Amino acid sequence: MRVLTPLAATLALAFALPAATAADLPPRPTVGDIVKASKPGDWRPLDPQNTLYMELPSGRVVIELAPDFVPGTAANIRALARENYFDGLAIIRSQDNYVVQWGDPDEEHPRALKKAAAKVKAEFTVPMAQDKHFVAMPDKDGYAPQVGHSHGFPSARDPKSGRTWLAHCYGMVGVARDNDPDSGNGSQLYVVTGNAPRHLDRNITVAGRVVSGMALLSTLPRGTGPLGFYEKPEQRLQIKSVRLAADVPEAERSKLEVMRTETDTYAKVVDAARNRGGPWTVYSPGYVELCNAPIPVREQK
Amino acid sequence: MRVLTPLAATLALAFALPAATAADLPPRPTVGDIVKASKPGDWRPLDPQNTLYMELPSGRVVIELAPDFVPGTAANIRALARENYFDGLAIIRSQDNYVVQWGDPDEEHPRALKKAAAKVKAEFTVPMAQDKHFVAMPDKDGYAPQVGHSHGFPSARDPKSGRTWLAHCYGMVGVARDNDPDSGNGSQLYVVTGNAPRHLDRNITVAGRVVSGMALLSTLPRGTGPLGFYEKPEQRLQIKSVRLAADVPEAERSKLEVMRTETDTYAKVVDAARNRGGPWTVYSPGYVELCNAPIPVREQK
Repeated sequence: MRVLTPLAATLALAFALPAATAADLPPRPTVGDIVKASKPGDWRPLDPQNTLYMELPSGRVVIELAPDFVPGTAANIRALARENYFDGLAIIRSQDNYVVQWGDPDEEHPRALKKAAAKVKAEFTVPMAQDKHFVAMPDKDGYAPQVGHSHGFPSARDPKSGRTWLAHCYGMVGVARDNDPDSGNGSQLYVVTGNAPRHLDRNITVAGRVVSGMALLSTLPRGTGPLGFYEKPEQRLQIKSVRLAADVPEAERSKLEVMRTETDTYAKVVDAARNRGGPWTVYSPGYVELCNAPIPVREQK
Repeated sequence: MRVLTPLAATLALAFALPAATAADLPPRPTVGDIVKASKPGDWRPLDPQNTLYMELPSGRVVIELAPDFVPGTAANIRALARENYFDGLAIIRSQDNYVVQWGDPDEEHPRALKKAAAKVKAEFTVPMAQDKHFVAMPDKDGYAPQVGHSHGFPSARDPKSGRTWLAHCYGMVGVARDNDPDSGNGSQLYVVTGNAPRHLDRNITVAGRVVSGMALLSTLPRGTGPLGFYEKPEQRLQIKSVRLAADVPEAERSKLEVMRTETDTYAKVVDAARNRGGPWTVYSPGYVELCNAPIPVREQK
């Protein structure tokens, strides 16, 4: 689970410490405290129809798709997984403080598609009416008129235009494309591995989020070619397979649950990220940037 | 050099593409274009008295200290480097989407200090008058009344209190501490490896920035202990040495230069990150978050 924690809280430094000074703030519940006190109804299991397992030699990456935001793209990614499109393909790019990307490294003899479409209409933004789960944050944001969470995903919206979109936070998965907005079909995906590149919002289809296994991607050696592409075949990590969870025997599925972002409990999580206290803290911003609000994931209880 | 670039710009996808649609924006200079057109006076070499080389088995990490913001801490880090304090110590922590931290892993028999101080007064914020180089960005920010750049570092300020501080952006280096605000002395340092944890601003002393070699730290395997600390000695990467550049023979120094953030050229860099155009772009936010404004570094010409 990705939870923000104060630095060095458990680390005894190598010299005697006086008691906390007068500068510290009154204690407040942490994200960990709130997760611990949560109720079963604050969580939802992953939907097997919207969950992908990318199997790497180093382990499993679990990706949750966001069909409310990308109905067409999610359908095509399901089709790609069902025709074993990704099996034997590779991680092709790792650019520091930006993205890791995967797909077919062979541009000259690309893997043929079976039922999956070669092009999918851009889903950079969708009508706000498509998203029934949005809960706004009061925190102001320079990239969008409104930000918040929708069914476990960081999202943003523009009430004037009536459009909403998923936000490029750490761990979000997008659909690589060329200049044509409709050129992405989900056969090349990327995940954000650095500071949120929110300028990509509304420019590219964001399809979901890595909910487990993020470190298997974020620690990959950076590619030495332009934009972090790997230059030699042996530098690329091979993908064993990508499967829809629904197509995997139940015993082999990851049993994960995500905190429901529509709950009062999740509002408390966001507030804990916004207002910090306790003996380590001398200043609390009373603000949290969208991508610094953690979305807890844990093993199903 | 860390430069943000549009995704997939050079990546021919595996199917024929039509010409760019009407949705694309007029071309605008990119950060790369502006760097290319810059003049020698737009750059400054690193000051050897404020530059650290951390030598790892995998290569050199170059850290620039910010003495305007941390005169006391910088002096103590120089003293630590000069007494070879870090040699043979280790990277002790790697927490995904947060920080990598280094120092003495042996809490029971910690390395003795020679001339370096065991405690340094907190430098979480300093009087604005100490920083002569600040250039404000017009972009609003939820974490501070004002943000911008000071002599190559992302910084923030509060004109009401008259205080300024360095911001926790990707690559920024801070001084781990315990609950006592004055407990950090620079013998344990961390670098931000994920989404900017700006809630740490004003809570901890930020001493500088990694200007080269960031990927040697950001790709380290994540620690499996609480807060990403490594649990076993063999998981820790050993530090060969940390030296002040001034103490290294000139022929062995890294010849890097940083773009002067007080120049018109740098204002154009920030504007290129704020306003994007060209055939790939369908939406430009007209805004850039402080930590998404790149600070170019290159080999000296």
